Amino acid sequence: MDRIVTFGEIMLRLKSPGHDRLLQSPSLEATFGGGEANVAVSLSLLGREAVYVTALPENPVADAAVGELRRYGVDVSFIRRTKGRLGIYYLEAGADQRPSNVSYDREGSSLSLVRPGDFDWAAICRGAAWFHVTGITPALSQGAADASIEAAALAKQAGCTVSVDLNYRKKLWNYGRKPPEVMRELVKCADVVIANEEDIQRCLGIEPVVAEHAAGSPDVEAYRNLAGQVRAEFPNLSHVAVSLRDSRSALYI
Amino acid sequence: MDRIVTFGEIMLRLKSPGHDRLLQSPSLEATFGGGEANVAVSLSLLGREAVYVTALPENPVADAAVGELRRYGVDVSFIRRTKGRLGIYYLEAGADQRPSNVSYDREGSSLSLVRPGDFDWAAICRGAAWFHVTGITPALSQGAADASIEAAALAKQAGCTVSVDLNYRKKLWNYGRKPPEVMRELVKCADVVIANEEDIQRCLGIEPVVAEHAAGSPDVEAYRNLAGQVRAEFPNLSHVAVSLRDSRSALYI
Amino acid sequence: MDRIVTFGEIMLRLKSPGHDRLLQSPSLEATFGGGEANVAVSLSLLGREAVYVTALPENPVADAAVGELRRYGVDVSFIRRTKGRLGIYYLEAGADQRPSNVSYDREGSSLSLVRPGDFDWAAICRGAAWFHVTGITPALSQGAADASIEAAALAKQAGCTVSVDLNYRKKLWNYGRKPPEVMRELVKCADVVIANEEDIQRCLGIEPVVAEHAAGSPDVEAYRNLAGQVRAEFPNLSHVAVSLRDSRSALYI
Amino acid sequence: MDRIVTFGEIMLRLKSPGHDRLLQSPSLEATFGGGEANVAVSLSLLGREAVYVTALPENPVADAAVGELRRYGVDVSFIRRTKGRLGIYYLEAGADQRPSNVSYDREGSSLSLVRPGDFDWAAICRGAAWFHVTGITPALSQGAADASIEAAALAKQAGCTVSVDLNYRKKLWNYGRKPPEVMRELVKCADVVIANEEDIQRCLGIEPVVAEHAAGSPDVEAYRNLAGQVRAEFPNLSHVAVSLRDSRSALYI
Amino acid sequence: MDRIVTFGEIMLRLKSPGHDRLLQSPSLEATFGGGEANVAVSLSLLGREAVYVTALPENPVADAAVGELRRYGVDVSFIRRTKGRLGIYYLEAGADQRPSNVSYDREGSSLSLVRPGDFDWAAICRGAAWFHVTGITPALSQGAADASIEAAALAKQAGCTVSVDLNYRKKLWNYGRKPPEVMRELVKCADVVIANEEDIQRCLGIEPVVAEHAAGSPDVEAYRNLAGQVRAEFPNLSHVAVSLRDSRSALYI
Amino acid sequence: MDRIVTFGEIMLRLKSPGHDRLLQSPSLEATFGGGEANVAVSLSLLGREAVYVTALPENPVADAAVGELRRYGVDVSFIRRTKGRLGIYYLEAGADQRPSNVSYDREGSSLSLVRPGDFDWAAICRGAAWFHVTGITPALSQGAADASIEAAALAKQAGCTVSVDLNYRKKLWNYGRKPPEVMRELVKCADVVIANEEDIQRCLGIEPVVAEHAAGSPDVEAYRNLAGQVRAEFPNLSHVAVSLRDSRSALYI
Repeated sequence: MDRIVTFGEIMLRLKSPGHDRLLQSPSLEATFGGGEANVAVSLSLLGREAVYVTALPENPVADAAVGELRRYGVDVSFIRRTKGRLGIYYLEAGADQRPSNVSYDREGSSLSLVRPGDFDWAAICRGAAWFHVTGITPALSQGAADASIEAAALAKQAGCTVSVDLNYRKKLWNYGRKPPEVMRELVKCADVVIANEEDIQRCLGIEPVVAEHAAGSPDVEAYRNLAGQVRAEFPNLSHVAVSLRDSRSALYI
Repeated sequence: MDRIVTFGEIMLRLKSPGHDRLLQSPSLEATFGGGEANVAVSLSLLGREAVYVTALPENPVADAAVGELRRYGVDVSFIRRTKGRLGIYYLEAGADQRPSNVSYDREGSSLSLVRPGDFDWAAICRGAAWFHVTGITPALSQGAADASIEAAALAKQAGCTVSVDLNYRKKLWNYGRKPPEVMRELVKCADVVIANEEDIQRCLGIEPVVAEHAAGSPDVEAYRNLAGQVRAEFPNLSHVAVSLRDSRSALYI
Repeated sequence: MDRIVTFGEIMLRLKSPGHDRLLQSPSLEATFGGGEANVAVSLSLLGREAVYVTALPENPVADAAVGELRRYGVDVSFIRRTKGRLGIYYLEAGADQRPSNVSYDREGSSLSLVRPGDFDWAAICRGAAWFHVTGITPALSQGAADASIEAAALAKQAGCTVSVDLNYRKKLWNYGRKPPEVMRELVKCADVVIANEEDIQRCLGIEPVVAEHAAGSPDVEAYRNLAGQVRAEFPNLSHVAVSLRDSRSALYI
Repeated sequence: MDRIVTFGEIMLRLKSPGHDRLLQSPSLEATFGGGEANVAVSLSLLGREAVYVTALPENPVADAAVGELRRYGVDVSFIRRTKGRLGIYYLEAGADQRPSNVSYDREGSSLSLVRPGDFDWAAICRGAAWFHVTGITPALSQGAADASIEAAALAKQAGCTVSVDLNYRKKLWNYGRKPPEVMRELVKCADVVIANEEDIQRCLGIEPVVAEHAAGSPDVEAYRNLAGQVRAEFPNLSHVAVSLRDSRSALYI
Repeated sequence: MDRIVTFGEIMLRLKSPGHDRLLQSPSLEATFGGGEANVAVSLSLLGREAVYVTALPENPVADAAVGELRRYGVDVSFIRRTKGRLGIYYLEAGADQRPSNVSYDREGSSLSLVRPGDFDWAAICRGAAWFHVTGITPALSQGAADASIEAAALAKQAGCTVSVDLNYRKKLWNYGRKPPEVMRELVKCADVVIANEEDIQRCLGIEPVVAEHAAGSPDVEAYRNLAGQVRAEFPNLSHVAVSLRDSRSALYI
Repeated sequence: MDRIVTFGEIMLRLKSPGHDRLLQSPSLEATFGGGEANVAVSLSLLGREAVYVTALPENPVADAAVGELRRYGVDVSFIRRTKGRLGIYYLEAGADQRPSNVSYDREGSSLSLVRPGDFDWAAICRGAAWFHVTGITPALSQGAADASIEAAALAKQAGCTVSVDLNYRKKLWNYGRKPPEVMRELVKCADVVIANEEDIQRCLGIEPVVAEHAAGSPDVEAYRNLAGQVRAEFPNLSHVAVSLRDSRSALYI
């Protein structure tokens, strides 16, 4: 009982070479990315049995995305091939004072068109130990939000530990709902929440009662307090993980 | 009075390197393509003053498309930056028995969202000698079809010679109209039509009364007859150009 | 009962870019090749369930070979990871008068070290409809030859149709056996043989009794006669396929 | 009397582009590397007359290795073309927490098959001022170890200053001898030894009597003591050079 | 009244890939560079109307330089196509202890052949707010020096603010004049001077009366004093900008 | 007595990738070319001892040219490093109707600045069997023409067979002499002339007395007659070789 299931959107990731601006040369590095797919691939490379669930259109580029997951040993047998597009994001690595930049072209993606009932979660989670989802999918559309909550609830019923990486993205959430309305419902189905301070504020509407930290180095105690606030509001959670990332230069991506 | 105006959609053209299948290596050649933009660039390289008109979204990849046109000396001052996406097409060059393949990802493109009145054709065509449009734009949406016919009519009023390249594409025309309903109206505004036999059948609903040609080499007389049929139905036309292309191998693209 | 099993060696294929000589630029195209693996990948792309069986060492490049097969949907669960090396071949595409050239670096490869009993053919062929092997593997070593014959015999017992592509390679067969001593035994286990005229002479020791063909175009009747000779000697065969390939220029590889 | 002779193995160095995993894209950077060849090339670029001695097979990739040495002005006239293979190493540059990784595929290399008497050291060292060898060659095979010691002894007789870079590699030394049994004999023929602390322990079996250094910065005095221990055991040495390298990140290779 | 005019030489910039030595692989990154063109492109990208003035030969590589400027929206209508060559510079990015290196191949460039009267500065500067030139152009030839001074003087007359980036380059100034003889005359036409300490010494012959700075961090007061000295000698200047650049490693270019 | 000496100009050859226009992408393939250097490299690859003589400047790109020749085993010890530049030619491979195009940037090249007496031909040709020169060098400058004739005459004296490839290039010969004035003098020193019909007309001023050939296939007899005319005028020649090249498409370069 070792399988791990992740659910989310995989996109074509088009990056200009090195630190070029987009299309400065007529070439793009073309790979696939998406937080939940990355988790599945990493777990598979570490030797775990990983299942990745998503919706993709029927076309050669989506075929290539599936092939890439399969190459890393991910179980792709529950991916549904449906209407809609393959989402795309363009990436430009920064240099010196110029920051890195991401442009999305993911409207109308197959995953944004899913609805509850589209996936047979009982079958998918049979024998699975863990189910992982992020706050990206609920940010795409009402249908994707509803499908995420349904998936987490059914995974929980099927005996999975459920983890949610809040992963707030300001450029998404354009379909009319406020993040906390949706995300608080999702977190109620979870055992583990992964977040940073901004995620907790934006997605759960929880403001830290203790100031974050003095200038310079992170104040571990303040983060411990914040995690405690989250667990106080969501007693169903066994763990709250706070991730800190220090970015030194746009030259490294 | 030398300016030439073309109107249509420019798309990001993503091609796998050499004769690779798509994403066989994690790289794509990224250029821009579109019949009407190609005409504008070619005329500019040949020393003519060319104006390209289209609608594009506000994002870095569309900026790059505009920059590329400008690099070749095309006048981009009438391009409108609007809602919608930048259309994309994926291209895979064939090899041996495997044919080349094109996949479109152009739904919701900015140009498919245009409507009559979106462009100031009187200003655009002031001082222009020629206006060129193809059957691709009318195949995208009712709005784009209406805008094409409006453009051709107003260009004609402004004193332009109007050319239409019928350019029938089976994968388009999905918005509910039959090609001849739209294209016959467009051709009524034209002076010059460019087409092959299939274009004439599909876009104008005209069947050749003389059989095409004996096996082997093209029968010039049969094409002359076909052109005569077109001019008989559309007495407004001064010229009908029939293009023939012989493809020897998928290795050359 | 649709599975197809192929057995052979997969190698790292290192090719100089374009028509360069090897190492003219400090870069090599690095893919994987091997007749039996190519058959498995092609069948999988065409929608069949394909199983590829081989022996590979434990190292990152062999891992990549397995990942590549998995990406195309090939079942890699019966590949054994053993001692020995991953074979390599270097390829240089010809140009003008210079012919293409292949250099092997495959001595001590994992597959050349296999012996009868190393694979559980009963389990591998359970439910399989077809088993395919070539004359490359028996050319590597006595152990590989014995293992090939064992595999074909057990596949036959398991109910598979067995095909053998003779595929004579002059640069191999260095371990002391004459090809017909080995290959005739292998063909006795087969239902289908694939070969050209030289393969039949070198691998089976059968000389055509009718002259090949007049200059210019292939003499179909002569090939039919040759196939008849093979079937007369090996009445177990249901089909003999003769492949003809016409090479026009070293520029196309 | 200015010529410098180095002796060792040159290998094909296959590196994945940038910080990719091996074969993540179907391309490898292909250059040649080997400590002793690097010394010869660097000295030649600095204007010295450098002679590189090794054994290589007869094939186009080994030809390219020789050509590359010649390009940098190294005298390749004493390289022997013999049986065996060209050794290969695969390199993957690390990223973030993932360390860089080297995989060897050098078994059966031409140099590992050499024996004493294979090279005419009297002729090679005529007029040479310096002879350089490392602890890599003796780690390959008994024959290569014996040939290294013979070379150093004859170079010394011919009037050369002899330097040995101990260069301990845990992944080698698989042929049955313990490093000190071989390396101590080699160092007895030398004038100069280059090493770090681990090299001295593993190759010479000498344990530092003074603890290396306090945390943080290197303790120069401790290294001076260690060098003194080496010279005490090997009074033939005029110099012991200790190299220290500080690696800050796997991103720089 | 928003246009900005810059005047100088644009060259083909040929750089070896990554940190390679020149021609280590048979490929060069080919872009265009020149301080004044870089200023025009940057201002255009920031939304200003920028005019770049230079002299270039009639050939396809110079055509490409013009196209590249046009792509970024720079007004190229005043570029003159004349006799002479397109200047070239080769660039090799350093690594570790090896510094970066630039090799010029710019003798006989079209811009080095210009003379006063070659450009119609009254027309070029009509409606322009700013004119920018550097100390590179006057370093090329007597004609280029005279043309620079003429341009600055006429731009001033036309109402432009005139800026001069002194930009001293030891490898230039080979035509017989001492930099201060020329540059002091140019600065007399300017409103703004951009320089570092060496530029001020070499181009203006002004020695700092206060020592530069204590070791470690720059002494702002010393630079303020130096700027004051420049303004004291050239009361026409409204601003003196001193640029400081700290280079940490040749790895970043 | 087996050495072959060739004398001429080697240039940096900058080619746009594939069939791109120049600088369509910001990359150029950078190799070295020149008819006489190509002959030396080819002979060296075929196992002959080849000496290449030229003049080159002192800079890293010229160093790379010398290294490249050395890599292929060519003797570069007589190359002189002098004043002047390294010549460059830009190459763009044609496609479809667009022909291939070469742009020269070779004015002021080191070889164009040579004069008689610059090379010690007696030393260079000592022990050489053959000396080869082309009509390119005499087309560069009066000095290069005089040096070519001197070289051929002294090579002849030294006992070499002298070959001249006429190689007429319309874009050269700009220094004021008519080709026959120079080339006839050069051919008088030769034993072997290589040419096509146009070369013979332009370089030697000899018009064919028999019409070239009927349409379709080359008329061997006409070429034999033409060669006879050349030998009649230059009785010193032992052989006249006429080269015919049939170009089918600009796609192959």
